[in-house]
Amino acid sequence: MDELEICYMSAASLGRLIRDGEISPVEVIEAHLSRIRATEPVLNSFITLLPDEALAAARQAERDIRAGRYRGPLHGIPVGLKDLFNTGGVRTTSGSRIFDTFVPAEDCTVAARFREAGAILIGKLNMHQFAYGPTGENPDYGHMHNPWNPDLVSGGSSGGSGSATAAGQCTITTGSDTGGSIRIPAALCGIVGLKPTYGRVSRHGLTPLAWSMDHPGPMVRTVEDAAITMNVIAGHDPRDVASANLPVPDYTAALTGDVRGLRIGIPRQHFEAPLDPEVRASVTDALSHLESLGAELVEVDFPEFNSNAAISTTMLMAEASAALRDVLASDGDKLYEPVRLRLEAGLFISAADYLRAQQGRAVFDRAARRLLDDVDLLAGPTEPVTAPPLLQQQVLAGEQEIGTVPALTQYTRPYNITGFPAISIPCGFSTDNLPIGLQLAGRPFDEETVLRAAHAYEQSTDWHTRRPPL
Amino acid sequence: MDELEICYMSAASLGRLIRDGEISPVEVIEAHLSRIRATEPVLNSFITLLPDEALAAARQAERDIRAGRYRGPLHGIPVGLKDLFNTGGVRTTSGSRIFDTFVPAEDCTVAARFREAGAILIGKLNMHQFAYGPTGENPDYGHMHNPWNPDLVSGGSSGGSGSATAAGQCTITTGSDTGGSIRIPAALCGIVGLKPTYGRVSRHGLTPLAWSMDHPGPMVRTVEDAAITMNVIAGHDPRDVASANLPVPDYTAALTGDVRGLRIGIPRQHFEAPLDPEVRASVTDALSHLESLGAELVEVDFPEFNSNAAISTTMLMAEASAALRDVLASDGDKLYEPVRLRLEAGLFISAADYLRAQQGRAVFDRAARRLLDDVDLLAGPTEPVTAPPLLQQQVLAGEQEIGTVPALTQYTRPYNITGFPAISIPCGFSTDNLPIGLQLAGRPFDEETVLRAAHAYEQSTDWHTRRPPL
Repeated sequence: MDELEICYMSAASLGRLIRDGEISPVEVIEAHLSRIRATEPVLNSFITLLPDEALAAARQAERDIRAGRYRGPLHGIPVGLKDLFNTGGVRTTSGSRIFDTFVPAEDCTVAARFREAGAILIGKLNMHQFAYGPTGENPDYGHMHNPWNPDLVSGGSSGGSGSATAAGQCTITTGSDTGGSIRIPAALCGIVGLKPTYGRVSRHGLTPLAWSMDHPGPMVRTVEDAAITMNVIAGHDPRDVASANLPVPDYTAALTGDVRGLRIGIPRQHFEAPLDPEVRASVTDALSHLESLGAELVEVDFPEFNSNAAISTTMLMAEASAALRDVLASDGDKLYEPVRLRLEAGLFISAADYLRAQQGRAVFDRAARRLLDDVDLLAGPTEPVTAPPLLQQQVLAGEQEIGTVPALTQYTRPYNITGFPAISIPCGFSTDNLPIGLQLAGRPFDEETVLRAAHAYEQSTDWHTRRPPL
Repeated sequence: MDELEICYMSAASLGRLIRDGEISPVEVIEAHLSRIRATEPVLNSFITLLPDEALAAARQAERDIRAGRYRGPLHGIPVGLKDLFNTGGVRTTSGSRIFDTFVPAEDCTVAARFREAGAILIGKLNMHQFAYGPTGENPDYGHMHNPWNPDLVSGGSSGGSGSATAAGQCTITTGSDTGGSIRIPAALCGIVGLKPTYGRVSRHGLTPLAWSMDHPGPMVRTVEDAAITMNVIAGHDPRDVASANLPVPDYTAALTGDVRGLRIGIPRQHFEAPLDPEVRASVTDALSHLESLGAELVEVDFPEFNSNAAISTTMLMAEASAALRDVLASDGDKLYEPVRLRLEAGLFISAADYLRAQQGRAVFDRAARRLLDDVDLLAGPTEPVTAPPLLQQQVLAGEQEIGTVPALTQYTRPYNITGFPAISIPCGFSTDNLPIGLQLAGRPFDEETVLRAAHAYEQSTDWHTRRPPL
């Protein structure tokens, strides 16, 4: 089989071939390593690549599977983890040279679950320092580049995960999402990114950014792969205080292809915010397409949406400074300056200000939950723009020029405030061939409906089959 | 019937007599008003007394009951509310002359529920300003005095509720408990005070002190009355964001008298903290008594107990300053100086410090919940000392002289951190005839087990039948 075909297969398809002995995990890993060699000089997706370890693991997987010790759908599948997921024996930098030589003793829960499922860790992925920033810059390990056009951002903070998945460097990657860090790179790189419900996937062993808003989740190329990955990584973990002790369904069973009768709320305010006309058109078409599949579109009023920046910025800055205070104190001079400045500023937020923001959050959350009393999902653009150029501070969104950071987080932050599950899936391309993302958010712990609608849309369109020109 | 007997009857007994027409609500209210006239010059339990309104309501209740419109066990029962429970048309001062003429338009949820149940509001009760302090001083409306010895504190912040209930001025009162403000006066005045689970009783319409730790609850003379009151005031209220949407049982059904097989955990650390020997002896006897009734005593290790002061002080100071910032800014000069100083200090707590305390809280909470995996209740003294003299800054607890505020809150704060239901019931008297309280805490939303054990203890002892010498 053509190496590029292997690299662009879904985990679902690849897993079946591996299970049936039609392809060896060694061949799979070799194909990905050669894809990485070919594309990495342009993309810079990885902070740490593990070619020898991955090949050794692939040979072990091959032996195990031949000996009848098949572990399930992820056995032999190449996985990349954002470099703030602790990996036992493999350095974990959190994107900063401060931790350039930090080697955790133990896997984080997500890494351990992948390992138990037989997935093969191929490397640790590039990211914004400490996940603090949506634009994918990194002076220590090099900026991340968008596979659709390397002059543009891949999105952040999980930018390496976005580019690695989109470019076929990994079958599955993970991100963590505090203000959009899974969904932003997913939208800008044209892949599927799922931020699960707060508490659904354990954060034990992840470097925290803002503990009340941090969510780990999968970044993949198909909705089915998101479901397969969730089957492995979701579930209760007593070592994460926020972890929910709730049963975990088989997420693949939710992918029925049927969205008839599903009520999809479209917050009016999403289309009153700064928004690029091409993105608007794609998302509007996508929503109409869902309607043609039998979903019911309902315009909803979500005035609280407009307060999301104030709430989430205050909470993020305060919590990030609390989480990273010791790093700032001991090694602040080694931080990327924009990250350092935000961390320093956050230290001046008083507890009283933070608590006011938390009160605003409670009101916001209540309003958002009320919307979901009437509709099953909330939908709109993931991003108001396609990928902007690297290091550019302002973007044009429709007729308004606004800051890149506020623009990239305007639609994603609300679901970090509420903790709702939210997915970004490809729903079109701009005239300059840049991907556009549709965001679907659901009720807490109802990833199934989110995945069902996303899958039905995906399977009746072909956006997810386009490959970046590299 | 003798007026004093009426004033010392339980709500349960009085309710049956009222229901059966053997006593009129008018007679009940008159008895209480005359008791208040006799004792109020010493106690100063009330900020606002409502003799005319209460008598009018009693006459209405009498007519309604005669006409067959009996509303249930609280119909015609005299109730006093701590003066931070908003009462429609009745001024609500929060214990401060800043709000001396503030008349809410609407009842808080608790007041509305009492009203619907036919209870009669006899007055609004004295308290520490804005509930900020456990010692029951109030320069604006006069200090509160302990019915067992008016030179001593009644405890706070719900000091007026404690003295009014203990002295037979009201059959039922309410308090709010952020660091112990229900249980402290209950223990020091020799009554029953229940802090329900966080989220069990609505806080809508109460002046907040620390929103993550505020709990309203009943202060009464018998455990059965606590259950009867909870039947009226507990339950979901969408206007309180923290209100739990869970079914509410009939709490009186829990009062079986049977504690056989109940596992009661005794944190070792409770008896290593500063503790008066007479209190220690009474509480130890009470625990042995529970054992003789069939409960199983289990010594448990709770090392996190020792961090409760740091966590709860930081959270309380930060949250109180957030809640009362506007009052401090506009009318700080009118506050009781110790309250003003604590509010001002709280403004300097950074969000990062607050969040560190919150992380400590999560660890504390997890440890406490783990204890309850193995035992049904946690038990120990409510207070390390009996009531200290008014305005005295230090108390002797065993061999250690410690601050009055830290002493009075040392055993109560832990359950504001965790939100567990916790009750204080009388369990003995010191040689100078001052009441001693036993604290029992249970699993979240398991008030039933707390009430069952408290009731079994109470019904097989007679501490609750002693009356203060006035």
